Amino acid sequence: MTVGTLVLLRHGQSEWNEKNLFTGWVDVPLSATGEQEARRGGELLADAGLLPDVLHTSLLRRAIATANIALDTCDRHWIPVRRDWRLNERHYGALQGKDKKQTMEEFGEEQFQIWRRSYDTPPPPIDPDDEYAQTGDPRYADLGDGMPRTECLKDVLERLLPYWTEAVVPDLTAGRTVLVAAHGNSLRAVVKHLDGVDDDTIAGLNIPTGIPLRYDLESAGDDLRPTNPGGTYLDPEAAKDAIAAVANQGR
Amino acid sequence: MTVGTLVLLRHGQSEWNEKNLFTGWVDVPLSATGEQEARRGGELLADAGLLPDVLHTSLLRRAIATANIALDTCDRHWIPVRRDWRLNERHYGALQGKDKKQTMEEFGEEQFQIWRRSYDTPPPPIDPDDEYAQTGDPRYADLGDGMPRTECLKDVLERLLPYWTEAVVPDLTAGRTVLVAAHGNSLRAVVKHLDGVDDDTIAGLNIPTGIPLRYDLESAGDDLRPTNPGGTYLDPEAAKDAIAAVANQGR
Repeated sequence: MTVGTLVLLRHGQSEWNEKNLFTGWVDVPLSATGEQEARRGGELLADAGLLPDVLHTSLLRRAIATANIALDTCDRHWIPVRRDWRLNERHYGALQGKDKKQTMEEFGEEQFQIWRRSYDTPPPPIDPDDEYAQTGDPRYADLGDGMPRTECLKDVLERLLPYWTEAVVPDLTAGRTVLVAAHGNSLRAVVKHLDGVDDDTIAGLNIPTGIPLRYDLESAGDDLRPTNPGGTYLDPEAAKDAIAAVANQGR
Repeated sequence: MTVGTLVLLRHGQSEWNEKNLFTGWVDVPLSATGEQEARRGGELLADAGLLPDVLHTSLLRRAIATANIALDTCDRHWIPVRRDWRLNERHYGALQGKDKKQTMEEFGEEQFQIWRRSYDTPPPPIDPDDEYAQTGDPRYADLGDGMPRTECLKDVLERLLPYWTEAVVPDLTAGRTVLVAAHGNSLRAVVKHLDGVDDDTIAGLNIPTGIPLRYDLESAGDDLRPTNPGGTYLDPEAAKDAIAAVANQGR
């Protein structure tokens, strides 16, 4: 029996996606294209009648703005909101602020792909004095020494799971339609967990921006399991095209 | 001893303010001018170093958007949010959707001013079948028969106080800087309560749009009392001009 419906929404293009820079925890705004993608995401939710009851976002403005725009578009701007750093994008360590193409040329494609896609090898940690290190950012004050300096996807999954269990699962088991507006890697971590994707296969899994991905969930012990493994994109054709485009990013 | 700081922010111009229509609970978006006012509100917060730790809004998009824009402008888009219908604008009853000037001509200035400004005389209730009655709006589903059909300012204060006591006061006594982004009449109700304004005087009290109004609060029994009675506008000159303009609204 379906207990709740999860909707994953990856933020639209940011100003740094546009410039092809590694972003991670750097708090970059959406580009005009990204805002359009968010509106389109909201239209897809409205057209499908898939109206969120509650929103969870990261602490980064590209996810927050995507949710604000999409929810305003489908007339659900008034729903309850929770924000948590555990939904943030993967911390890209010393690569934050670096050009993707230059990084590939400097370190070679093999190293570049390891940093981008390895499940358990993080990039080198960022220097706390680096301008893109978020040192002293008040939104992370509670983290203290637990503030990440770099992360691989495995680290993202580990820091995300407590929030999933404590905050998202209770909303779903209460029968709500839950929108999680977040990032490429925090959403890949959710998908890996839900679909039981293995450590190698997850490297090749890309989630397109701005296209809501629906999971219908049923109870499975203390956790939840999708009745539609892999989820269902609200615009399958656009998702297919976008997945191919993401796979070529950085080339 | 100051325990917490309250910042009241009235939403900027909406599309219906621009058209001079009674709005109330009708969920009208900000105009382009209103968006600019919200950005200016955020700049005033940033310039004053008055950075909110938590946000409370109504369920109406003109207050929600004002808060989103102002907080994004002062880099506080990531703070926790609570939304509640108890912060909504006064329900304007059968006047919702009506032109202010036409209403004054039809019913005379005396009746018009009673409806606009009387503390305890509400306008006639709206017909549940009226296109502006919000009948069946899912955001008010929990209210059932308690859904207002019209309100005077006294009604607003009575429905607002439980939220003030249960949700806003605890944030303030925890020492937080609390932003309440709301409406002309819900904010007048807060000010009446905080400053102990009498029922006659509150009729002449106008709160300008988009200019943050700061109250430093100290404990007073179970409630809070301002150490700066009347509050402090972050841009006192602009506030003075805007208060005069609001007083002439509908003329």
